[in-house]
Amino acid sequence: MHFVKMHGLGNDFVLVNALEGKEKALGDLPALARRACHRRFGIGADGLILVLPSARADLRMRIFNPDGSEPEMCGNGIRCFARYAYEAGLVRGPEIKVETLAGIIKPRLILNGDQVAGVRVDMGEPRLERGQIPMAGEGSPVVEEPVTVAGTTWRGTCVSMGNPHCVFFVEDVERAPVTTVGPAVENHPLFPQRTNVEFIEVLNPGELKMRVWERGAGETMACGTGACAAAVAGVLTGRSNREVTVHLAAGDLQIEWSRKNNHVYMTGPAVEVFRGHFPLHEE
Amino acid sequence: MHFVKMHGLGNDFVLVNALEGKEKALGDLPALARRACHRRFGIGADGLILVLPSARADLRMRIFNPDGSEPEMCGNGIRCFARYAYEAGLVRGPEIKVETLAGIIKPRLILNGDQVAGVRVDMGEPRLERGQIPMAGEGSPVVEEPVTVAGTTWRGTCVSMGNPHCVFFVEDVERAPVTTVGPAVENHPLFPQRTNVEFIEVLNPGELKMRVWERGAGETMACGTGACAAAVAGVLTGRSNREVTVHLAAGDLQIEWSRKNNHVYMTGPAVEVFRGHFPLHEE
Repeated sequence: MHFVKMHGLGNDFVLVNALEGKEKALGDLPALARRACHRRFGIGADGLILVLPSARADLRMRIFNPDGSEPEMCGNGIRCFARYAYEAGLVRGPEIKVETLAGIIKPRLILNGDQVAGVRVDMGEPRLERGQIPMAGEGSPVVEEPVTVAGTTWRGTCVSMGNPHCVFFVEDVERAPVTTVGPAVENHPLFPQRTNVEFIEVLNPGELKMRVWERGAGETMACGTGACAAAVAGVLTGRSNREVTVHLAAGDLQIEWSRKNNHVYMTGPAVEVFRGHFPLHEE
Repeated sequence: MHFVKMHGLGNDFVLVNALEGKEKALGDLPALARRACHRRFGIGADGLILVLPSARADLRMRIFNPDGSEPEMCGNGIRCFARYAYEAGLVRGPEIKVETLAGIIKPRLILNGDQVAGVRVDMGEPRLERGQIPMAGEGSPVVEEPVTVAGTTWRGTCVSMGNPHCVFFVEDVERAPVTTVGPAVENHPLFPQRTNVEFIEVLNPGELKMRVWERGAGETMACGTGACAAAVAGVLTGRSNREVTVHLAAGDLQIEWSRKNNHVYMTGPAVEVFRGHFPLHEE
């Protein structure tokens, strides 16, 4: 099969055009994802993304994890999907309707002439009620809540973007104890479904610098929902504007928390790395 | 640049034809290796291998690590090189003369009709003198030498295949304490330049099962020189034949310690995974 390898802030994907009946030739999709995503015996990626026809939208996206499981959606993945579909001439743009397991998502291409400078994705409304994060205790929103780990009390502002986040503001994010405090907060009794943990340095009201401890994954280079949660926490605590740039290890995300409809919009890069041909059957 | 991605027992490489003046277009080779080997922002590999012209042999091989450094040679890499060169019609085979920083190496293709079933590589003579391994203490060869770690005494048979190896025979390799005893032996005062550590289960005199702790790398799926050292240690201790199959996590190696010239020959697979095109300049 022909494929394009892309990444969004280091989160990398194999994209395959499965339109016009090509899906059938791909065979067992979870098995193909396991083979294609393997970093030594396959192409290597965090996910396999298929471009499929849709009766309800311009296109349908299916994404498979390296273990063959199928998540509802992926913020970094849909940016790659949108750019791929546009550059392959499969859609007109700049807004694309994409059917996913999480419903219809409408990524918007940011064009600079004919060049794709980035992709903007509606990440939905943040949930601020304590029970919806979910988090133990009383009172909403959860702003500067004391969270004690190993005898030190941190002040966490907590937000759900479909998944839980606990945001800490720090003086110097490079020195933040991400790999020690991160896992302790992830598994703190305050968070019955565990939590992602963001460490944020406020450079100025329009710029945040972030490191993230992802639930179940450890410290990662980028977390789209984490950047959204950080922006919301910046507004809730009066530290930042409703439009901010979040600096991550592999690049920047622009986050806007709209006053108009309460939705959070994330704009970020999608980059092609290489193209190739992968045999559907092993040697 | 066009490339082929291959692996030998899970050790994976990007192979590029740099004949006919194509080397120049590749620019700064260490920088290209760093980009191409990156598993998220590049193709992803343990090494970049270039096929170059040679005045002294059929072809010249240069290999670069993901950090841009250039090792002398690589047993798994040269198998991939040989198969690539043969299948691309760059050499006739079945024996190929390859110029490397470790001298002229002569891999031999094992052909099954037109199919490459494997590649045989002369790994040279094992060095059994204690000082050449190098190892502290007195007496050579080093057979069943007591090595005490954490209060337990193991019996090590030690061999250099250009790099040091300490081989332990165990009853059940799946239960061998590779990740605890491995690093303790790697850094044991007996080994002034540290050592690789092999845990070997003898299935029968013609078959060994191996797990390996590689110096500076931890437990890995395969180590060509380690398999050679295991076969030599099997002969030295009367446990195995001079021709053995070594079973590793990702497949098998056939090892022969020749009575005729004292050289060790390693035969193993080289597998193409996919082909593609990687831009020489970043977006």
